[in-house]
Amino acid sequence: MQSDYLHGYSERESIRLADQANCLSELLHHDSIFPENSIILEAGCGVGAQTKIVAPKNPKSKFISIDISEESLKEAKSSIQYLGIHNVEFQAGDIFKMNFPDEYFDHILVCFVLEHLPKPLDALKSLKRVLKRSGTITLIEGDHGSAYFYPTSNYAQKAIHCQVQLQKSHGGNALIGRELYPLLVKAGFSHCAVLPRMVYVDSSKPDLVEGFTRNTFTAMIEGVREKAISGSLIDEAIFDKGIQDLYRSSESDGVFCYTFFKGIGYNT
Amino acid sequence: MQSDYLHGYSERESIRLADQANCLSELLHHDSIFPENSIILEAGCGVGAQTKIVAPKNPKSKFISIDISEESLKEAKSSIQYLGIHNVEFQAGDIFKMNFPDEYFDHILVCFVLEHLPKPLDALKSLKRVLKRSGTITLIEGDHGSAYFYPTSNYAQKAIHCQVQLQKSHGGNALIGRELYPLLVKAGFSHCAVLPRMVYVDSSKPDLVEGFTRNTFTAMIEGVREKAISGSLIDEAIFDKGIQDLYRSSESDGVFCYTFFKGIGYNT
Repeated sequence: MQSDYLHGYSERESIRLADQANCLSELLHHDSIFPENSIILEAGCGVGAQTKIVAPKNPKSKFISIDISEESLKEAKSSIQYLGIHNVEFQAGDIFKMNFPDEYFDHILVCFVLEHLPKPLDALKSLKRVLKRSGTITLIEGDHGSAYFYPTSNYAQKAIHCQVQLQKSHGGNALIGRELYPLLVKAGFSHCAVLPRMVYVDSSKPDLVEGFTRNTFTAMIEGVREKAISGSLIDEAIFDKGIQDLYRSSESDGVFCYTFFKGIGYNT
Repeated sequence: MQSDYLHGYSERESIRLADQANCLSELLHHDSIFPENSIILEAGCGVGAQTKIVAPKNPKSKFISIDISEESLKEAKSSIQYLGIHNVEFQAGDIFKMNFPDEYFDHILVCFVLEHLPKPLDALKSLKRVLKRSGTITLIEGDHGSAYFYPTSNYAQKAIHCQVQLQKSHGGNALIGRELYPLLVKAGFSHCAVLPRMVYVDSSKPDLVEGFTRNTFTAMIEGVREKAISGSLIDEAIFDKGIQDLYRSSESDGVFCYTFFKGIGYNT
């Protein structure tokens, strides 16, 4: 099994995902707490970057974490084992073809997955089948259209737009964060609520400057350089100026803003 | 005295400002609480849209609210009188040429003013002179580059950009929210902190759909239609499609996002 994950499966990408997860864990997951003794499906766990944050927060619940990539699962398992986390079971699986019985899980968690799927609404409908009545689904996604910074830079916006276009050409949607509410409602969930989690970074927050502006967001955009240039999406000099301007926003008088969206729906 | 306020001084604009203030009062001002017995300068009070929210929250403090426009002050006075608020004194005054002695005020509040000034940094330095040692300055500004919505629309972004361009041609900066932290630091304030206040609107929040997406933000952009078209900033059909798309984001499956920035600095 192998998927077409835009960011690739390199070691550098694993480090980037770990950086992202560490510096944002409180912002995204301080309320990722499920009732004790729940059985929770984590759909699309990847290398376990979110698993290792959320599983220890819910030690009396059991996680079944699935992913389509065997390679990612291997890394996830090894990382969870290394951390001594015992309440996670990994399984290879496709969100669209799950073998679990109907209404099997108490709760479902889906982080940074829908953005990569050509049919996110169908994914939600598929997940709804395996969710118990009165169970919840929790979605977390970013939105690259929520990125803005000081000093402003059209070059940087163009470089970011390459990432949006590339993700689109892979069938994904880098602007999906803003769409979580209508997706949840259309998939048939009720009492839906979306809570934006804005990351605001200025030089009074050096950890976020380093961990988010530089090592998470800018590194991600920098990571699509070759694909963007070879795909003729952008001129090389413009892309490089854009990256330079993103790093500029991490200087002492710079500011960087980005918003993640966390959505919750009930299966009533 | 008359200033060149981009949005104009019409009755409709007063209603828009009142709508904005009412539906956002908690988000922006739940923490606009000053120590008792403070003397607070509200610089650029306009028609008193923020005054009438903040003054009643601080009944044991005294506000001196200044504005450059006599016409706005007249309306502010009448509105404050009508509401029976007694702790506000209005004065005509220019932020750059204030007659107050040095270190006169305990605290200073500046809401939606810097965005209209050609030299916001000089304004902050001028205000710093009249602020007591250990006093605070509080800034609240919007940022039109923080507006995004579902469904996405390039037409709507172009219509919003007209507002940004017009404000720039009047010497202002509609993207100033993201810049509050460096401005405070450069003006010499210390222990500066900026707290973004994001407005997230989906159809589970009908009051914000009506009060913010439609009657505050879209009405504001709609309000620059004639200037944008007569100034050849945009084709009429594109502008109108942009406004239509902004209203589209207020429908049942639409989402609208905007972020205000609240910054605080100390005069140590």
